[in-house]
Amino acid sequence: MLKELSSKAVKLREELIEFMDEYVYPNEKTFEEQLNEQESRWEIPPILEELKAKAKAHGLWNLFLPDEEYGAGLTNYEYAHLCEIMGRSLIAPEIFNCNAPDTGNMEVLVKYGSEEQKKQWLDPLLEGKIRSVFSMTEPDVASSDATNIESTIVRDGDEYIINAKKWWSTGAVDPRCEIAIVMGKTDPDAETYRQQSMILVPFDTPGVEVKRHLNVFGYDHAPQGHAEIHYHNVRVPASNILLGEGRGFEIAQGRLGPGRIHHCMRAIGKAERALELLIHRANHREAFKSRLIDKDGVREAIAESRLEIEQARLLTLEAANKIDQEGAKAARKEIAMIKIAAPRMALKVIDRAIELFGGAGVSDDTPLAEFWADSRTLRIVDGPDKVHLRDIAKLEIREQLKDN
Amino acid sequence: MLKELSSKAVKLREELIEFMDEYVYPNEKTFEEQLNEQESRWEIPPILEELKAKAKAHGLWNLFLPDEEYGAGLTNYEYAHLCEIMGRSLIAPEIFNCNAPDTGNMEVLVKYGSEEQKKQWLDPLLEGKIRSVFSMTEPDVASSDATNIESTIVRDGDEYIINAKKWWSTGAVDPRCEIAIVMGKTDPDAETYRQQSMILVPFDTPGVEVKRHLNVFGYDHAPQGHAEIHYHNVRVPASNILLGEGRGFEIAQGRLGPGRIHHCMRAIGKAERALELLIHRANHREAFKSRLIDKDGVREAIAESRLEIEQARLLTLEAANKIDQEGAKAARKEIAMIKIAAPRMALKVIDRAIELFGGAGVSDDTPLAEFWADSRTLRIVDGPDKVHLRDIAKLEIREQLKDN
Amino acid sequence: MLKELSSKAVKLREELIEFMDEYVYPNEKTFEEQLNEQESRWEIPPILEELKAKAKAHGLWNLFLPDEEYGAGLTNYEYAHLCEIMGRSLIAPEIFNCNAPDTGNMEVLVKYGSEEQKKQWLDPLLEGKIRSVFSMTEPDVASSDATNIESTIVRDGDEYIINAKKWWSTGAVDPRCEIAIVMGKTDPDAETYRQQSMILVPFDTPGVEVKRHLNVFGYDHAPQGHAEIHYHNVRVPASNILLGEGRGFEIAQGRLGPGRIHHCMRAIGKAERALELLIHRANHREAFKSRLIDKDGVREAIAESRLEIEQARLLTLEAANKIDQEGAKAARKEIAMIKIAAPRMALKVIDRAIELFGGAGVSDDTPLAEFWADSRTLRIVDGPDKVHLRDIAKLEIREQLKDN
Amino acid sequence: MLKELSSKAVKLREELIEFMDEYVYPNEKTFEEQLNEQESRWEIPPILEELKAKAKAHGLWNLFLPDEEYGAGLTNYEYAHLCEIMGRSLIAPEIFNCNAPDTGNMEVLVKYGSEEQKKQWLDPLLEGKIRSVFSMTEPDVASSDATNIESTIVRDGDEYIINAKKWWSTGAVDPRCEIAIVMGKTDPDAETYRQQSMILVPFDTPGVEVKRHLNVFGYDHAPQGHAEIHYHNVRVPASNILLGEGRGFEIAQGRLGPGRIHHCMRAIGKAERALELLIHRANHREAFKSRLIDKDGVREAIAESRLEIEQARLLTLEAANKIDQEGAKAARKEIAMIKIAAPRMALKVIDRAIELFGGAGVSDDTPLAEFWADSRTLRIVDGPDKVHLRDIAKLEIREQLKDN
Repeated sequence: MLKELSSKAVKLREELIEFMDEYVYPNEKTFEEQLNEQESRWEIPPILEELKAKAKAHGLWNLFLPDEEYGAGLTNYEYAHLCEIMGRSLIAPEIFNCNAPDTGNMEVLVKYGSEEQKKQWLDPLLEGKIRSVFSMTEPDVASSDATNIESTIVRDGDEYIINAKKWWSTGAVDPRCEIAIVMGKTDPDAETYRQQSMILVPFDTPGVEVKRHLNVFGYDHAPQGHAEIHYHNVRVPASNILLGEGRGFEIAQGRLGPGRIHHCMRAIGKAERALELLIHRANHREAFKSRLIDKDGVREAIAESRLEIEQARLLTLEAANKIDQEGAKAARKEIAMIKIAAPRMALKVIDRAIELFGGAGVSDDTPLAEFWADSRTLRIVDGPDKVHLRDIAKLEIREQLKDN
Repeated sequence: MLKELSSKAVKLREELIEFMDEYVYPNEKTFEEQLNEQESRWEIPPILEELKAKAKAHGLWNLFLPDEEYGAGLTNYEYAHLCEIMGRSLIAPEIFNCNAPDTGNMEVLVKYGSEEQKKQWLDPLLEGKIRSVFSMTEPDVASSDATNIESTIVRDGDEYIINAKKWWSTGAVDPRCEIAIVMGKTDPDAETYRQQSMILVPFDTPGVEVKRHLNVFGYDHAPQGHAEIHYHNVRVPASNILLGEGRGFEIAQGRLGPGRIHHCMRAIGKAERALELLIHRANHREAFKSRLIDKDGVREAIAESRLEIEQARLLTLEAANKIDQEGAKAARKEIAMIKIAAPRMALKVIDRAIELFGGAGVSDDTPLAEFWADSRTLRIVDGPDKVHLRDIAKLEIREQLKDN
Repeated sequence: MLKELSSKAVKLREELIEFMDEYVYPNEKTFEEQLNEQESRWEIPPILEELKAKAKAHGLWNLFLPDEEYGAGLTNYEYAHLCEIMGRSLIAPEIFNCNAPDTGNMEVLVKYGSEEQKKQWLDPLLEGKIRSVFSMTEPDVASSDATNIESTIVRDGDEYIINAKKWWSTGAVDPRCEIAIVMGKTDPDAETYRQQSMILVPFDTPGVEVKRHLNVFGYDHAPQGHAEIHYHNVRVPASNILLGEGRGFEIAQGRLGPGRIHHCMRAIGKAERALELLIHRANHREAFKSRLIDKDGVREAIAESRLEIEQARLLTLEAANKIDQEGAKAARKEIAMIKIAAPRMALKVIDRAIELFGGAGVSDDTPLAEFWADSRTLRIVDGPDKVHLRDIAKLEIREQLKDN
Repeated sequence: MLKELSSKAVKLREELIEFMDEYVYPNEKTFEEQLNEQESRWEIPPILEELKAKAKAHGLWNLFLPDEEYGAGLTNYEYAHLCEIMGRSLIAPEIFNCNAPDTGNMEVLVKYGSEEQKKQWLDPLLEGKIRSVFSMTEPDVASSDATNIESTIVRDGDEYIINAKKWWSTGAVDPRCEIAIVMGKTDPDAETYRQQSMILVPFDTPGVEVKRHLNVFGYDHAPQGHAEIHYHNVRVPASNILLGEGRGFEIAQGRLGPGRIHHCMRAIGKAERALELLIHRANHREAFKSRLIDKDGVREAIAESRLEIEQARLLTLEAANKIDQEGAKAARKEIAMIKIAAPRMALKVIDRAIELFGGAGVSDDTPLAEFWADSRTLRIVDGPDKVHLRDIAKLEIREQLKDN
């Protein structure tokens, strides 16, 4: 590979692959069965907590956290290689306590939380005991344009009063969810990127209403789930504000870079698994007098997939490395690029696998249909492609017209 | 339009559009709510039967049936225009008793059923009282290659014994389902396309086991549903055979042409509705200081969608017209072409709408995600694209190398 | 086909096909050889005039002209079918005196020319004795936006003085070229679409300077050629104005509709010939132990090409028919659509043929590379795709937001 | 960037960019004018030799040659960065004596030439005094399948007799061309990849006939040119054989890896320049009341281009690095992948630029049309995409089915 991986990361990667083979893939069906057999899909299937305990025992825990005190202390470039492996199974990220939005929320708490807040929220999150929510997106406006945000966080004495209508708050339906980070405007008259703030809202605060659960293409993503949450005059101590008033956009940006690396590497993991499934299916299936794997057309599908995966992975690793070397701001263009490239690629590769699997591909008999739905959704999470294309173009034009 | 539509069809089309506006679209949410509120999603929501009664009263009933005695007596070209309208809502086809697989099954019964069979199965189907299943696809083999079929229909005195493992039998979970048409081999040693037969199997015959329900991208398609059905030593009277032993492939082919027109026109209807939704959303949504509809990129998405829809519709109408004029066999190439072109187009158009709707597009707040899932599945139903491309190429090469 | 073709057109089509087989294809190489062997490529190869005489003798002459007095009196729908056949050979259109821009210029003269002008310019054009130029596009501005046009036509007593810098004036290098129709502004202060006028400029008028010849992807298109023409204070009689001052945009629009049908049908003809060449090549070429035609991948290329050609042709015929039935204005959306769809499709089909031919495909050994270059250029002629997408979207949005 | 570039390469890159700005780009038109003004396009325009002398004086000479004795001693990874810069101008590679096929031929001579041969052919090639040809591809067979090669090299005493019909022998029309490397079969009965040999054929040997010149999309590529060459009973000393009988395929393979890196990096250079041209054009051009650069659609084109370029470059650098680290054989999959990815990407980016330039884009007013034609041809050079997809799939399947 272009840049060598540290021996620490190589070793973790091998252990991770082994763990996936031994414990994760074989339990995907178990997880689904337990979910269906228990009274409600919104309870936690026991297998999940068992596997979490195992992963923790193996030292495969909080790998995402670059902070050495709290986590594995890996660079983005290193963790990217591990994150890809986790992305191969829909149940894996949580097993290793590397699940969004908890990962981003933990990072925010590590960086900006008070000791008290860390004790109350970060510690149980690091232990995988509670879950958290990140309430940013709003249903009524194009919130990929941060200036559109309508939620308010108003100071009132020693408290802030939060009024917000949010959706796609992932994890909100999870019975273990205890804390939310909410984005809203503290000062609508400040300059564009100083209007927003982020604040910690304990989930049991009066006024927090999980309005409804949201499906993603028919999938409920239980037991985690995505929800619409209404915050009605929710009051929290003023000290719950993160970093300070007007710093919300800044936190969001800082959270964004590594988060996208994670999302994109997981998408690449899905694509790799889809290709693997495709090849094994083609190897065993026959039609019109020959095995599918011996047909030119199928071979072209395999080769095109490899071509696309390699390029998307290299770009994502480039972005990860640039964050490590020059910081997230310098890597803005790369971060915007992978947000488009990785899920687009994954959708193409997964779709080819679905096509080859036929009916099995669109059903729950393979993870492919849900992989597809997730990857499609990823193209929307924190802004549709057009928003990122816009950013890339702006940066590109700025560079080129300055240089020449 | 290239070929004028008869005044009869024009009038039906206008009535249908009016009915959709007045009764169907406004009740889509009602249908979903009733489904969720009743004890099981596998019961029939009352609104469905109410709307069926209304449609029947309006004379918008069995429009698909070209036979004038039993149905509307429309040509494929005429009905295609109506079918597109019905395709715009997921609940519409059944409301007008024009739902697959019942439509194809009714056609088969009209053509090949005995008087007794017509009385027992066709009449209640025509009245919309019972539902039926078409058991063709098998999980263990590439059944788009008909020679691979493993199910057997073996004569034993006055009966046939059926052993079959089928899946994607649509409608099997519906509590009203009473009859199945099953495809199997009566003579594995006959020439390739004379090995298969079709037979009527009452759903309450011992040995018929609805093994499990199948989701499509997380959707259960309740209350109809798709199922895996195992037929274990199922015995039916010998007279239940359709058309005669060895005629199964022939029936399948005859059933196929009009069926694909229906599927494709419904896909076109979905694309039209998606485009309509996209335009209305873009008209009301704002980002980065202007309405979405005023952005070049969004306008290009609209124009490209129109371009693709028009071409796919013209091709489908051409195929329908060719079936009318020269028969399904002469139209084989066109029928294979639309099977590829229409769902591919629909997927592109719907995807653009999903992108513009963002989170709302992948959730249940719009019909888009389910439209997408259905259209993707349509690309697999009766054979993946590669099978149809193969057929088109074969016919094309045959023509060109003969001519020159 | 969706709409039946008149027996008159069917007969002409058969005669045309026969003529192409007998005289045109076999002389493509002769034409090229004569062009290369004569002193300059800008002289007329004798074979061209011989074939023109033959075509005229066969009654295959001026088929494009809907006017029965001067031409064949065919509808756009009818002529479209003939135009496709002519498009199959780069030398064919002129042989049948159906070559752009002469066709459009003749139509303009038929409609708006005085008797004197008809005698002087239309008659020799109809006889194929002289050639003409249409000077519209300007190098310094985006002239697909007609308001940008900078050329001026200023009244001065009994004369107009023309100052214009035009390029892509096709036919200007042809030694037989005698007349130009020039577009310019007579009144820059009039309302947007009344500023422009068209005027007849005999090519030997002082001040007409053919500045330079323009290649298209390396092709010179001799002996016709495209040129940059500068008109320096060119004076012509005031009666040379066409239809009247401020009517230039209107004439351009009227000329446009049928012109695009022609361009698109010729592109479809090129695609058909490319597919034919591809199939024959694949039938005779072997690699990796089997004939190319027996490989899945090649068959998929054939099938995809057929799919794309059929759809583009149906759309173009739809547009032609709509012009016939409702006029060019009503057919604006369709005309904009085919301008995008037909050359795009042709490029894809031709490119597949090039790929299969390898080195022969990019060289002059097949017509494919030049077909490709011409089709690529067609995407630019009278405006890039983005301009047409813009128009389609505008019309689509207008319809949808009114209806709903 | 993912892997740091050595300071030596960084410095050479800067000097190269400076040289390009100062001497190469400003002389592109001069080159074309001299070519057109001199008696024949097949003479060498003086500017070319002037610039070569300048480049040599600047030490920007033979940079491609990894051998430190004869060349710059750069790794493939290092040279790739320089090669990209050269690819930005069609006249640049020869100016730096880094032009195909001379580069590959020089490498072969360095590795396998005798001292005598080096003195006679390598030295003047390294000095840029003579030019050479690589005769591999044959017109009558699919020579991307090496087993199809029909040329023969037959031992006769102290000589070999060569009979071969070759085409796409680049440089053959160049008046300075003095030597050819010819591939043919010495033993058609040997095992598949031991049948072929390579031999040195001085261009003035009796029997060498440059049959005809080949255009590429209308371009003649003068003064270098591509040709069909017939070798009729050409006799050369037995010592002219390279490496030994039966080693032809092996040499071809060894030559291939770095050659593809060069081709692909040059294609990337073309794409970069096309994007640069696009942005500058968009910055100065106006239509429909705003500058093109302010339109969403144009910005999306810019962003998509950047996305595609980055990915293709990373993949090519990965392949280059893998050759350096593990050898060409280990990098086979990567080498096959870039052969597909880089020109495909370049075609898309260049096409967008052409579209934006309109008429100027397809003419000789920009280098875009010729860039496009070259990149399209690159997709065919040493095998069409399908051949490389086949190889990638084979390697991919082998790895996956072994691993699992």
